[in-house]
Amino acid sequence: MRLAVLGAGAVGTSVVELAGDYGHTVVALADSSSAAVDEAGIDAEAVLARKEDEGVVGDASVADALDCDYDVLVEATPTTLGDAQPGFGHVEHALARDRHVVLANKGPVAERYDELRALEADSEGTVLFEATVAGAIPALSTIDDVGAEHVTSVRGVLNGTANFILTRMAAEGLGYEHVLAEAQDLGVAETDPSFDVEGTDAALKCVILANLLYGGGYTLEDAEVEGIEEIPGDALDLATEDGRTVRLIGEVVDGEIRVGPRLIPANGTLAVTGTQNIVQLETTFAGTLNISGRGAGGPETASAVLADVGRLPER
Amino acid sequence: MRLAVLGAGAVGTSVVELAGDYGHTVVALADSSSAAVDEAGIDAEAVLARKEDEGVVGDASVADALDCDYDVLVEATPTTLGDAQPGFGHVEHALARDRHVVLANKGPVAERYDELRALEADSEGTVLFEATVAGAIPALSTIDDVGAEHVTSVRGVLNGTANFILTRMAAEGLGYEHVLAEAQDLGVAETDPSFDVEGTDAALKCVILANLLYGGGYTLEDAEVEGIEEIPGDALDLATEDGRTVRLIGEVVDGEIRVGPRLIPANGTLAVTGTQNIVQLETTFAGTLNISGRGAGGPETASAVLADVGRLPER
Repeated sequence: MRLAVLGAGAVGTSVVELAGDYGHTVVALADSSSAAVDEAGIDAEAVLARKEDEGVVGDASVADALDCDYDVLVEATPTTLGDAQPGFGHVEHALARDRHVVLANKGPVAERYDELRALEADSEGTVLFEATVAGAIPALSTIDDVGAEHVTSVRGVLNGTANFILTRMAAEGLGYEHVLAEAQDLGVAETDPSFDVEGTDAALKCVILANLLYGGGYTLEDAEVEGIEEIPGDALDLATEDGRTVRLIGEVVDGEIRVGPRLIPANGTLAVTGTQNIVQLETTFAGTLNISGRGAGGPETASAVLADVGRLPER
Repeated sequence: MRLAVLGAGAVGTSVVELAGDYGHTVVALADSSSAAVDEAGIDAEAVLARKEDEGVVGDASVADALDCDYDVLVEATPTTLGDAQPGFGHVEHALARDRHVVLANKGPVAERYDELRALEADSEGTVLFEATVAGAIPALSTIDDVGAEHVTSVRGVLNGTANFILTRMAAEGLGYEHVLAEAQDLGVAETDPSFDVEGTDAALKCVILANLLYGGGYTLEDAEVEGIEEIPGDALDLATEDGRTVRLIGEVVDGEIRVGPRLIPANGTLAVTGTQNIVQLETTFAGTLNISGRGAGGPETASAVLADVGRLPER
């Protein structure tokens, strides 16, 4: 398929780098202010080098990228809350042109899911968004497989940054501030880590899971969210002595969405370590299914994007 | 879809009981010597009650079931080695009639994979077999999703009976014979447990995984197999003292298939307990993916069969 990639961050650039390995051609890449468009296929190396050197990916505009001839729009711009713009507008534009859309951007699926499905219903295009939840972990396709109506609840560790911090705090007996600084030095946490440590990112993923399970109707406002910033180091020491540990658990149960620190068995299935994520599905007939792996990262998330591209009907 | 179910064991009967919940109709159920056929849909309760009381499912023959008008043949007769009969013949018959086939029977996919794919190529029907590997765990569909060419190896705990025995031996410090007898009392192990404890069952699953990963060419003869019958109880005690444990691990790596007892970290990802199974995929771009859950059981395996039915193209 011919892909137009919006967003030149870790995920967007990885999609550009890996698309060829999956048999696809990238005809456009746009960052927030510039774009490279070539319907014969952009020169990934040259474009990414120019982004590196000059801070622009090319001489074209984002509008040029949106208007070029592609089969699939890959929306990988940063997640925004509320109106989920500019991502939502990009998706709307592609669906109006009867193009497929694959999202890595959580905003449109978490904040404007029902509108998104309505636009999809009026379009020849299909919308997929595996990459919005737990990176490389095939959470959404497994739910589709089992059948959303046969999944009774979803629970999991959905934010690698928060999990890295909690794992280090428990393992080293260090305080939150100390480990956060360490995570920032390692590039595991952003300079402004609030999105991850306050639970917002995990909550958005739970909202997306709830929309999939219950057929829509959920936004971030429906989630009860508590972060990990207030956890005292000695709480983790006490948990450890007791054979338990603390994880930031997101859950979608009985139509409710909750995210917060929970005490869990230290050797239990949910106690994944470092930046690992895990998604645990309770099903009607198949018992509990656990899927763990890398919940973030450019190539990991790009592989989820490209798996979605592979699931799309031919145009 | 209209399903003809061959095999009235735990899986076949669960498929009959659950098909309606997935929106499908069972038009035939056959055991080894009798069948119930009703193109309007068989009366599951009555048929299973008759099997219970009289040892037959109905007055029709297996041939009648094979010849009735169905969309999907569900092959759930017992796995046989070598020529994989009678299962292979059932599949051949259905494909010749351009019907879809969903297998729970490992024989045809492990022992005659290349012939099976050749028959499928000449048919309008599609062959799926998620249920043949690790019960409820969506191992094969996840490999399809990631792309077989991007999966570099598969490793896992693929036999719940062997895993239950090893878990109990380690937890209770009991010997193999004692725990095996206990497992037989609990119905976790068969009266003749050789298929499970000698590693044959796990090896067949690895052969199927290898056929999927490498595009065919493998049979049980290509697998290097060692069972768990020779493991002395004190080997597990020593492992435990060392923070490790023993699991029957099946692996498909670099074109080789190996099954045998392995020392692994007691709290590691692969150390699932009881009858749980786990499948671990190493991928080129997405790192390691772990999927764990119930690897056997009637409803669990039937849910994999019915997920396959849901993936089939309409006829």
